[in-house]
Order: sequence, then structure tokens, then C-alpha cells
Amino acid sequence: MADKLWGGRFQDKTADAVEDFTSSLPFDRRLYRQDIAGSQAHARMLARQGILTEEEAAAIVQGLEEIRQEIESGGFTFDPALEDIHTAIETRLTEKIGDAGRKLHTARSRNDQVALDVRLYLAEEVEGLLSDLTELRRAGARLARRYFGVIMPGYTHLQRAQPVLFAHHLLAYDEMWRRDQTRLAESLARIRVSPLGAAALAGTTFPIDPQFTARELGFPEVFRNSLDAVSDRDFILEFLAHAAILMVHLSRLAEELILWSSAEFGFVEIADAYATGSSIMPQKKNPDVAELIRGKAGRVAGHLLGLLMTVKLRPERLQAALRGGFLSATDLADYLVHQGVPFRTAHEQAGRLVGYAEFQGKELWELTLEEIQRFASQAGPDIFEWLKIENVVARRTSPGGTAPTRVEKALRQVEKELGL
Amino acid sequence: MADKLWGGRFQDKTADAVEDFTSSLPFDRRLYRQDIAGSQAHARMLARQGILTEEEAAAIVQGLEEIRQEIESGGFTFDPALEDIHTAIETRLTEKIGDAGRKLHTARSRNDQVALDVRLYLAEEVEGLLSDLTELRRAGARLARRYFGVIMPGYTHLQRAQPVLFAHHLLAYDEMWRRDQTRLAESLARIRVSPLGAAALAGTTFPIDPQFTARELGFPEVFRNSLDAVSDRDFILEFLAHAAILMVHLSRLAEELILWSSAEFGFVEIADAYATGSSIMPQKKNPDVAELIRGKAGRVAGHLLGLLMTVKLRPERLQAALRGGFLSATDLADYLVHQGVPFRTAHEQAGRLVGYAEFQGKELWELTLEEIQRFASQAGPDIFEWLKIENVVARRTSPGGTAPTRVEKALRQVEKELGL
Amino acid sequence: MADKLWGGRFQDKTADAVEDFTSSLPFDRRLYRQDIAGSQAHARMLARQGILTEEEAAAIVQGLEEIRQEIESGGFTFDPALEDIHTAIETRLTEKIGDAGRKLHTARSRNDQVALDVRLYLAEEVEGLLSDLTELRRAGARLARRYFGVIMPGYTHLQRAQPVLFAHHLLAYDEMWRRDQTRLAESLARIRVSPLGAAALAGTTFPIDPQFTARELGFPEVFRNSLDAVSDRDFILEFLAHAAILMVHLSRLAEELILWSSAEFGFVEIADAYATGSSIMPQKKNPDVAELIRGKAGRVAGHLLGLLMTVKLRPERLQAALRGGFLSATDLADYLVHQGVPFRTAHEQAGRLVGYAEFQGKELWELTLEEIQRFASQAGPDIFEWLKIENVVARRTSPGGTAPTRVEKALRQVEKELGL
Amino acid sequence: MADKLWGGRFQDKTADAVEDFTSSLPFDRRLYRQDIAGSQAHARMLARQGILTEEEAAAIVQGLEEIRQEIESGGFTFDPALEDIHTAIETRLTEKIGDAGRKLHTARSRNDQVALDVRLYLAEEVEGLLSDLTELRRAGARLARRYFGVIMPGYTHLQRAQPVLFAHHLLAYDEMWRRDQTRLAESLARIRVSPLGAAALAGTTFPIDPQFTARELGFPEVFRNSLDAVSDRDFILEFLAHAAILMVHLSRLAEELILWSSAEFGFVEIADAYATGSSIMPQKKNPDVAELIRGKAGRVAGHLLGLLMTVKLRPERLQAALRGGFLSATDLADYLVHQGVPFRTAHEQAGRLVGYAEFQGKELWELTLEEIQRFASQAGPDIFEWLKIENVVARRTSPGGTAPTRVEKALRQVEKELGL
Repeated sequence: MADKLWGGRFQDKTADAVEDFTSSLPFDRRLYRQDIAGSQAHARMLARQGILTEEEAAAIVQGLEEIRQEIESGGFTFDPALEDIHTAIETRLTEKIGDAGRKLHTARSRNDQVALDVRLYLAEEVEGLLSDLTELRRAGARLARRYFGVIMPGYTHLQRAQPVLFAHHLLAYDEMWRRDQTRLAESLARIRVSPLGAAALAGTTFPIDPQFTARELGFPEVFRNSLDAVSDRDFILEFLAHAAILMVHLSRLAEELILWSSAEFGFVEIADAYATGSSIMPQKKNPDVAELIRGKAGRVAGHLLGLLMTVKLRPERLQAALRGGFLSATDLADYLVHQGVPFRTAHEQAGRLVGYAEFQGKELWELTLEEIQRFASQAGPDIFEWLKIENVVARRTSPGGTAPTRVEKALRQVEKELGL
Repeated sequence: MADKLWGGRFQDKTADAVEDFTSSLPFDRRLYRQDIAGSQAHARMLARQGILTEEEAAAIVQGLEEIRQEIESGGFTFDPALEDIHTAIETRLTEKIGDAGRKLHTARSRNDQVALDVRLYLAEEVEGLLSDLTELRRAGARLARRYFGVIMPGYTHLQRAQPVLFAHHLLAYDEMWRRDQTRLAESLARIRVSPLGAAALAGTTFPIDPQFTARELGFPEVFRNSLDAVSDRDFILEFLAHAAILMVHLSRLAEELILWSSAEFGFVEIADAYATGSSIMPQKKNPDVAELIRGKAGRVAGHLLGLLMTVKLRPERLQAALRGGFLSATDLADYLVHQGVPFRTAHEQAGRLVGYAEFQGKELWELTLEEIQRFASQAGPDIFEWLKIENVVARRTSPGGTAPTRVEKALRQVEKELGL
Repeated sequence: MADKLWGGRFQDKTADAVEDFTSSLPFDRRLYRQDIAGSQAHARMLARQGILTEEEAAAIVQGLEEIRQEIESGGFTFDPALEDIHTAIETRLTEKIGDAGRKLHTARSRNDQVALDVRLYLAEEVEGLLSDLTELRRAGARLARRYFGVIMPGYTHLQRAQPVLFAHHLLAYDEMWRRDQTRLAESLARIRVSPLGAAALAGTTFPIDPQFTARELGFPEVFRNSLDAVSDRDFILEFLAHAAILMVHLSRLAEELILWSSAEFGFVEIADAYATGSSIMPQKKNPDVAELIRGKAGRVAGHLLGLLMTVKLRPERLQAALRGGFLSATDLADYLVHQGVPFRTAHEQAGRLVGYAEFQGKELWELTLEEIQRFASQAGPDIFEWLKIENVVARRTSPGGTAPTRVEKALRQVEKELGL
Repeated sequence: MADKLWGGRFQDKTADAVEDFTSSLPFDRRLYRQDIAGSQAHARMLARQGILTEEEAAAIVQGLEEIRQEIESGGFTFDPALEDIHTAIETRLTEKIGDAGRKLHTARSRNDQVALDVRLYLAEEVEGLLSDLTELRRAGARLARRYFGVIMPGYTHLQRAQPVLFAHHLLAYDEMWRRDQTRLAESLARIRVSPLGAAALAGTTFPIDPQFTARELGFPEVFRNSLDAVSDRDFILEFLAHAAILMVHLSRLAEELILWSSAEFGFVEIADAYATGSSIMPQKKNPDVAELIRGKAGRVAGHLLGLLMTVKLRPERLQAALRGGFLSATDLADYLVHQGVPFRTAHEQAGRLVGYAEFQGKELWELTLEEIQRFASQAGPDIFEWLKIENVVARRTSPGGTAPTRVEKALRQVEKELGL
């Protein structure tokens, strides 16, 4: 039976299978850095408040430092029968420095200790994610800049809808990632609240200074209610929600890359370095990385970054896709509105004209003026210039629209935000 | 076949079963107020920009006003074959005011329209929730004030752990609800972003002023990218996450009330007005409202408020529950630490003493000093005063702790925040 | 305050808001047929066992019959303050027939009553679903028969992989739906277990005959333990799981139809009757029905059936898609294996040859024998015949494979199972 | 760069980060036994069909056997850069036996191989679970037998409802576990379907015998459609659903043990060997194992078994809990029905009498006959005998009810089913 932090009251020893079942060591051993940092701050505070002597605190801080090195060098033995990382470290500490180690847990419980460890851990993860997102946004902005002039079909319901700048399409992702960053940054304020000092659940009888420990650990705030401090897991749920929303965005781009790399779309070429093959079909080149991004938890933003930076855009295929979807039909209706036709009527006339053109197997601009006027009597000869795809795009100068002038401004704004 | 906003291009009519299947009217008809407000703002903007005449805009605004009254008076017929609330309202508008109605959709798509409606709707819901939470916090603070002196067992793992003030227990919920309010308030900034002007997905060719529409609707911000504006549903996911976290808090209190109203706990009495009976067992009085709070979506905060305000606390049962759990065992260990025993050693001695007392069927303070000293030689006669439950509570004066002095401060702070 | 089935023990009346909150009437009123059928069977049993007189039972059965007609003709008033459908019906029954109505609940509780209602309801739903699935399988088999000879690319990771018969592709769905049917049919045995007679939770003191009631309601089995009978909801969870798996299958086909109706794939044409348009873009024809099938709960199988039956396949596009994916590369490797090359080596040679052909912008069969032999020295002149797509398909005669001979057998088997 | 099964077509090597990201080795290495067994059966079949020589097959089977021993003895190096367990094993095989190893993958793809591995793995897991459930049922039946005569309150809504035998309560769990076993056993038929021979997705050109491989592996059925065979994951979803339902049952018992071991209920004593302590509170003894059963995935049935077998029932506390909940109120109503009062009227009278008794602070049987008759005029002096808790239990002789005669029969039936 391994050492427990609580054996005194028990008469029978824990069943072996139970030790294994209740041990959280396989999961929480990754919190060792946070646990050690928290204990060092706690020991310093105890000394400062006269609860430990300076010598005891120094021995603890030094002993913990050595334990950290043992763990990082692989020299530390994790006894699987130990309950958790806290027990593992405290047990080793007492082995090394004796009775001072048995004083470390004064005015503390595992309840506030584990809450602190998780908060320290998550704060670091969120910071890492914020920085990954900045890199991803930069890669997106660079790609937008590189292919600035390229026009592609915008889709709704996977049907071609209206032409847009490829750069405009990429900047939509920038909006998503910017929101992700805002949300994560806001949540940091709720993560960086120190629970240390709440003890088991009711506070402690020792004259502690929770503000000091919080400052030592870089946390701007301290808990207000001890019961809440040890049971609050809101910040984890909040993080999971933010991570899930972020995953929606990453998955969306990944799915797009999968679709675009199909033979039928052919808009992009996935680099060999980011593709995998088949064990039986020699010709296969699969967008496996993109697929895994959709399905995997973990730090996927970095992998999407790599994928995005090596993707080879095929502008001639995007160009070709501008034919065949009547992408300027909305502008035909808008044209008629400018001639005084009410929008709903203009929409109907344009709809019928599209039906006719489709039946004839022609693009709108391949019809004669007479044909057009048969459905839309207000149309004049300037309609052909009006329907050109580049003009359709250029005309969308409304704020946030896809006209090159607008997108240029938007891209510059993003580049400025990202220091590019 | 009902009127569509898009019939022109189609040769065959929609299958009847499909009309029924694709109609969102049963769901989105509740958005009528938001849809009308959005359309009125849009019409005013179109006139201001010279896209509609002032007369046309006035007719539209007035017509929509009348439609709102028709809906609210029950005089509006919702044709189930119509696609959605937008179609229903635009169709009726054109019936009423003719061609001007057919111009309303100029420079707009249902894509940006529905995005706006949902944002307007959710903004109102979140405001309602914020105000419900304030009421709930007030009820909690009043209850805490009323029973300020009452001590109860704090529990972990449903086992009695340490004594706490009932008021301290309630203030833990105040912390949760305060966080809920902060989260919801922050999300409002992402909800109140006007998507109007994004049109289908690429912006519009008309010289619109999205800032004007946003201002009209009380939204401080306007979308930055048209593709993102029509597809962004982050704010809904974010709201669902916040609502789920809030539900965790409400359910926790509801579960506590269920447990506390059991015969075995007996800490509270549920008012008849908030209980239900059994169709077969005449004696049953079930905490049904509390159970439904756990299981139901919707505005449950209000029902919890009602339940909380009528709950009858039974202080004598709380008092009785302070016996039998060795609630002062932690303080016994702390006492020994003050005599110079290392905490971990003190914990072991206290644990063994508890085992002895349990075997004797006695409380810790019912043992003799000799018995105590057999396990903890450093104990002196002041130990008995030290172990009194009131002293155990009073001694927890650490920040956020359960000592009456601390809780008084915390409660005053909350009362101040809530204007009580 | 509305009538309760349990008022006696209560002194204060239920709060109005609580009546509204706890009422399940808006949800369970749809169970009226099941509730009435269950009560009629219960009344007949009570009479048969001498607990009611024959006259009382007859009055109850007749009264309930009339109530059913009132509900179906719209003449029944559902008082929103009533707790549930059981209360609504029992209250009305007593109004109609007096004291005999007050005897109906003898030897019964709402606990076993509601369990019975839900079981009756779900049994009917599952039967309906089984029959919908048979229709869907028939539509699939007919489509497979109609386009039997058409070859298309099989895909993995959305990349073209190997050629398959379109009929083979459809029959894969038949396998899924057959499994769905098996699962649902098996679960019926666990749904059709009568809980009537368990009363509140402990059985009853009256000499009831649960077997009789079960037989009356067409349920082959009766509960074995009264506590389990009133709390068992396994069958609902099981149904939800089966429904979710079925939805995976329906969604998969729906997604395929969406993809196939894109301009880029163009494999199918969605009928106008199963498509919708855009309020702003006159040319749009959206596969909305297919999209809703993915997102909607409810009886979607029927809508997919309609969609499937009207879909217009475009064989020339499927044919065209057979070029450009090196779909016979696996067969090139297999060919080399037949010449004695170990498979893994053959796979490598074929892989390099594909790389070469892609670089040259040629299909495999457009290379010269010399070019082929440069990578695969064992290749002979028969390789060209071997690589023809029709031969690639025809050669896959392994059991369950895509060769026409195999698929013909498989389709006949399915047609036989479905009585086609 | 590690060896791939598909390098030929690629010109650039896989990015290192991508190898790490796409490798499934950390997950699928646990499938090594299944993978080897499947490959051995495949090799034997290839030889039997003349596709490999007998010598080649023998070398493969023997080589794989050695690899299995290497893995189990810890001598096998899992190169983290390898894609998956299939690649790891095939690579090592070719190292060991040369070209024959390169022939193993003939007429097979990883697609059908991985499907087979997962099916073999899950079949074993389900068999293990079935046997765990039998043990758990046995432990439950033994406990029921041991405490056969003990009566306890049955609860609804955590309120005392009617008295039941403790054995009856346990047998309700037996019903749940029996259903779990039925479901799992039925699903085995859908798990044990061999997909081998579907190759990538379209079958193979080699003259394979899938029936032979299936028989070798103990699977009674073979896939019918190759496309379905490689994509079917229904059986996993089905298993997850069954496991989730099982967890509901285990959690329910675990929660009951937690509640029952609280000081307030005190119905059971958790053995020291199945409890844990607190790092700060010396007196704590926490039902941690029961809590983890609710929260943990994995083979928890075994841990619940251990907990159940060591739990110490406290019959005197169960006995004490029979007072104070008016548990015989239903029988009071039933009594009145036997005197000719309609049930609904009897329920009301009993309800009012309970209200009176509660106000007087008395049990029903502590009232005088005059007091009782004031509310229920039909009551006679035999009412006191009727209301005794033992009689209340004994009277519930309806099928599946809690009367000792019924429960004895039910328990005997279960004991017979379980061979006890």
C-alpha cells in the first residue's frame, strides 16, 4: 500500500484494485510544473506570515526545484499506486528534506491546490492558443495579399451564388479568428483567479495572505468565497465552449480544402508533405491532414497553419468556375431596379431570363439584347458591360463588400492589426 | 402553391410535402417583431440614401406597423405553406401597399435579414436573463441576511466536512451568478453587431449606409466582412454555452433543495405552492418544481426565484446535523500545528483520535483530556474550547473564509452591488 | 386552481406560475389515444377481476370512447392549468359518468400509466419507421435497377479511388437500412413490455391480472419487477440511439445529393419540386430538402424517399468523371502481381508510373508500352486492355464486389427481400 | 522519414509534424493481437486459393507469431513516425522474412483490415462485459438473499413513498443488467461480420474466399457489399449506446450508495478498502470509488462489484427510516376502496388524514379510531392492523410486486438463471 496523505482514520488498507482505479496520476502528472510552482509560492507565503520559518520555506522551495529537475530529466519514479501528482511530489519532498516537507500542506487542502494547478495550466494553454491564432491570421493575410486579384465563385448551399475576391473569402476567416481571440482573452480574466487559501472549503484558521500567493503566480485576482473557490469549474466549461467554436472555424476551412482538392473542384493542390497515400491504390493522394483537423482535439491550429502555408492555389480553375453558374443574375436584377423596376419584379424577370439561358446552354452575356429584352424590356445595350464578372465584383463597394477597393482596405486593416 | 420570393427561375412547382418540410414559419414566426423593426430601419435607410422615395419608405414603415398590430391582435393569417416569417410579412405588405412593398427587399437578402432578426431576438433574451439573475442574487442575499447566524455542515462527497455559515453557503451561489452575468454581458458586444448590408454574401451594388441601420436598431457595431456576416453563428453557440453553465448553477441549487427536503436531511420545507402530489400515494409532497428546474430549458431562473423565496428553513435540523460528523477534526490538527507538530503528523494524530472517538460513539469534545493526549500528546485543556463548532467557524477569518466577520463583509459587498 | 389528482394533503394551493411550469400537457397531449386505450384495457381487467362492476367498466370504456371523439373532433378543451393528459382525461371522464370515473385509478398510479402510454406510442412510431424504411429500400432498388450499367468513380477522402457500378453504390445504402430495420425490430421486443400493475413502485394490494391488460394492448410481455417497471426508460434511450444511427445513414445520402448537385460534380439534377430559390439571387436553385434532412429530426425518411424518386441522374457526367483520377492504378499493381511481382513492389511501381503520367498530363492508357515498361518492366501489351475502366469493374467478382455479375446477384437478392 | 505503404506516387516527403499528427499508432497499437490474427487468417486463405505458395504463407504466419511475442515481451520497437499498427507489423515482417512479407497485402487494403481489427477487438470486449455483468448479477442476488427480510422505504423524488423489501430493490437492478446483457448479446451478431475481402472499397480482382477467413476468425457472417463493408461503423455507435445505457444503471446504483453512506441516510457503511480520505480533514471517509464509477469510462462494472460485495448494510437504520414518511397512506386509501369508497375520494380522505397526523406529529397508527373516522367514516378497528408496515409489504402480492412471497419467487428465478 502506497503512502496516503490521510491514513490516520482508516483501519483497513485500500484495496489494490481501488488504488489503481482512484489514482489520477496518469492524468494529472502533466500538471507537475504548475503544482510545484504553486507549492513554492505557498511556502514563501507561509514563511512571510510567520507560519513556517525562513529556513523551512527555503528547504521546501529548493527541494521542489530539485524534484522538478528529476521529473524533467526522467529520474523521478511515478509510483502508480500513489493517489495523484500532489501526493507524489509531497511524498518525495519529505523523503528529501524531512519534517519541513510535512509542514508544506499547512493552511492548504488538495481542493484549493488542484483548482490552482488547473487554472495555471489552462492559462498557459490559452496563451499558447492566442499566439497560434495570431500566426494563423498572419498566414491567411499573406495568402490574401499574394492572390489579391483572383476572383472565385461564392457559394451558398454548395451552389454557385455570386463572384467574390479570393482575398475576401480568406478575410472572412480572419473575422472568425479575431472573435476567437477576443473570447479567449476575455476568459483569461476568469481563469487567472487564485483559489489558494480556500483550503478544504471553509477557509483556514492560519493567518495567510492569498494576495501574496496570487501575485507570485501572476494572477491578478483572488477568490471571494471559499466554497465557490474549491468547486468552481466554470472556467473549464467556458474554455471547452470557446475551443469548440474555434474548432468549428478550423474544421470549416479544413473541409473547404478537402472539397477544393477534389478532382471535381480542383481549386487547390495539397502539397505532398501534407498528404498521405493508400496501402492498395497507388494513385491516391489524400488530404488526410485536413481530415484530421476536423476530427481531432488538441493543438490543431498549428497543423492548419502548415497546410495553409503550402497549399498551391490554381487560379485558372477558379477562373473557369466563374462560368456556368449565372453568377451575375443578381446584378441583372439590380440593373433593372436602377431602371425603375421594383426589386421583386426585377428578380422575377431575371429568374425567367436565367431559365431561358440555361435552356439555350448559354451564359447571360452570350444572349442577344433582343433575347434579354423579351424578358426584361428595360434592358439597354449597357447591360453586357454591366454583367461582366469583374464589374459585378467591382461594383460591390458597400461597407464590408467584396469590391477590390473595399477588400484592399479590409486587408490593410488586418495587416496593421497583425503587424504585417 | 404559396407565393415564393423566388419563383422566376423554376418551371415546376414545389411539392406540397416539401413546402411543409422546408417552411420555417412555425419556428421563426416568433421573430415577427424583430423582422418588422429591421425592415423599418432598412426602409428608412433606403430613403435616406435616395434608393427609395420618402413616400415609399413612409408607406412601408406604416404598412409594417399595421402588420405588427394585425399579428398581435391575432388578425394575421399565417399561411403554413409560406416559407418563413420574412415571406409572410413581405407578401402581406405588398398586398397592403402595392409596388412599394416589392421594393423593400432592394439591397438586402434574407441572409442578412435573418441574421439580424436572430441577433435582435437574442440581445433581448440576454437582457432579460441579466435582469432575472439580478433578482435571483437579491433573493439569495436577503435569505443570507435573514438567517445570518445559522451554522450548517459543509459537505464534500456528500459527507460532512467542516461547519460553515448558511449565509456563506448562499454567497457561493452569488459568485456563480455574478460570473454568469459577466459572461452574458461580454457576449452582448458580439451579439449587437448589425449584419444588414451584407446582402446574400458579397455586399450590394446599392449605395447603402449600414451604420445608419445599426444605429436605428441600437446596435453599436457593424459587420466587417460580408461573407462572415451572413454565416456567423458564433454568438448563438456562445450563448448556448453560457446558458448551459448557468443551468449547471441553477440545477446545483435545485438538487440541493431536493436533497434538503428529503426526510433524511429535513433542512428545508418546500412550500405547498411549489410542490406537487401523487395520483396514488395520498401522503406525498414532491419537490417537483426543483426537479423540473434541473431538466427544463427556458426561463427557469424565475421559477427558482419563486422557490427560493418561499422555502422555509429549519434551523434546528441544521443545528442537529452539526453533531456526528467530527466537523472540528481539521481544527484539532491545526491546533496541534500551533503546538509545533508538523501538519502531516498532526493530521495523522487527529485521524487516529477520530477513529477512537467513533468506536466509543462519542464526539471529540466528549472525550477526556487523557484520552485525547493518548493520541496527541501536545493537547492541553484549552483544546475543548478550541473544538466548539462556533469557534471552529469563527476562527476561519482568512479572506473568503466562513467566519461571521468575513461573511458579514462579503454579504455587505454583495448587498451594495445589488442595491439592497 | 385546476383540479388535481392529489389535493387532499395540501393546505395551500399551487402557485399559478408553478401550474404552468409543471404542466406536461403541451407535450403529453399527443399521447391521448394511447392513454385512452390503456385506461380502457385497465377498466376491463378491473371488472374481470371483480374490482369494478361490469356496469362501471362499461361506463368507463364508453365514456373514454366519447372523450377520444371529442379530442379528435376538436371539441375537447385542454385546460392549460391541468397537470397532464391523464388528469385531463380522468377529470373529463368523472364529469361525464360520475363516481365510476373516480374508480378508474384503482390499482394504478400515473407512474405505470405514463410508462405504458410512452411504450404504446413508441411501438407505433417504430412500426411506422420500419415501413418507411421498406419503402426507401424499394426506391433505392428500383433506381439501382434502372441505371444498372452506369459506372462512376468510387471515392475515399473525396478523392477518386476505383470505378464502381452506380447500382453497387446504392446497394451499400440498402445494407445500412437493412441493419436499421434489424435493430429497430429487435428493440420492439423491449418496448412491448407492459408496466401496468406496478402501480406507484411496489405493486398493488388489489387482485389484478397484468397479463390480461398486456394481451388487450397487444403486448406479448409483462414487467417482472415493479420498481424497475416504473423507472425503466432504457427503451427510449435505445430508440434514440437507433434513430441517431439511421440519421447518419440518411444524412450521408443527403450530403451526397448536395455534393452531386453542385456545378462542379453535376452528377444529378434535383427536381424543381424538391428545390428552393433565393430571395435575392434569381438564378439560385438550392438543394434545400437534402440539407434539411441532415439537420432535422422527425420523419425525414419519407422526404428522402420523395427526393430520391425524382432525382435525375446525369450518366454522361458520371462517365466523364471516370477520366482524370487514375482509377485503374490498383489494377495496374494487381496486373504486376499476376506477373509475379510482390504486391508491395508492384504498388510502388504503379505509384511511380502514376506520377509520371500525371506530369505528362496523360491517362495511364494513353502512355506507350515503352513508357510503362520503364517503370514496370513486367508489363506486356495486354496491359492496355487490362486497364480499361469497364474491365476494371468487371474483374471485381469477389463476393460483395462491384462486378456487374456480382451486383446483379446482390440486387436480385434485395429485390426478393423487398418483394419487387 | 519512416517507411510508408504508399511512397511511390509522392515526390516530396511527408512533413515531420504531419507524420506525428497523422500517426494513429499511439491509439491502434492496442489492436496488435487482432491485426496479427487477421493477417494470419488472410495469408492462409491466400495460400489455399493459390495466390500465395504454401511456403510463403507458412513464413508469414510464423513471422507474425514471432512479432506477437516480440510485442508481448516488450522487445518490439514502435517507431512513432510509422503511420499505424498495420504498417508497423508489415514493415517488421518484411524485415524478418523478405519478399513474402511484401506479398501479404495482396487482395487486401488497410480499409478492410482496420475494419476487421476493430470488429475482433470489440467482439472480445463485449464478451468480457457480458461476463462482468453475470458476476455483478450474482453479487446482487447473493446480497438480496442475505438480507431477504429487510424492509426499507421506497422513494420517488427522494421522498419516502411506500415500504419495499430491500431484496426487491436489488432485483430491480437485476432487471436492468439482464436487459443490458440481451442488448449486448444481440449486437454481437452485427459485430461478428467479417469485412475482409472488400479491399479498398470495390472488392478485389483476386479469387479470394472471404468465407474461409471469416470461419478462421470465428465470425459467422461475411459482408454483402464491399462499399458498405469498409465504411460501416454502425456497430461502434451501437456499442457506445449500449455502454451508455449500462453506465446509467451502474451510476444509479453508485449514486444510491453515495447517498446511503451519508450521515443523514446512514443505510450503508462503505468498507475502508473502498473509501478514500482527505489531505486536510482527518475525519473524512469519502465514497470515492462510487463517485468515480459515475464519472469514469472503462471497465467499471468490476469495481462496482467489489464495492457491492464489501458494503455493510445497517438494517437498524433502514428500519428507523420506515417511520416518519406515512408510508402506509396508499394502503389507507386502498382500505377505504375495499369499504366501497371510490378510489379518488378515498385518496382525498387519506390525504387529509395525513395532513392532520403530520400536524399532530403522529404516525397514522398512533391516531385514535375516532380521529381517523373524522376524515374517513368507513374506517373500522381493523385499520390499525392493516396499516402495519409489514402488512403493507406483505399485501403487495400482485405479479412483480414487493410482497415477500413474490420476491422469493423472483429471486429464485434469478438465482436459477445465474446458476446460484
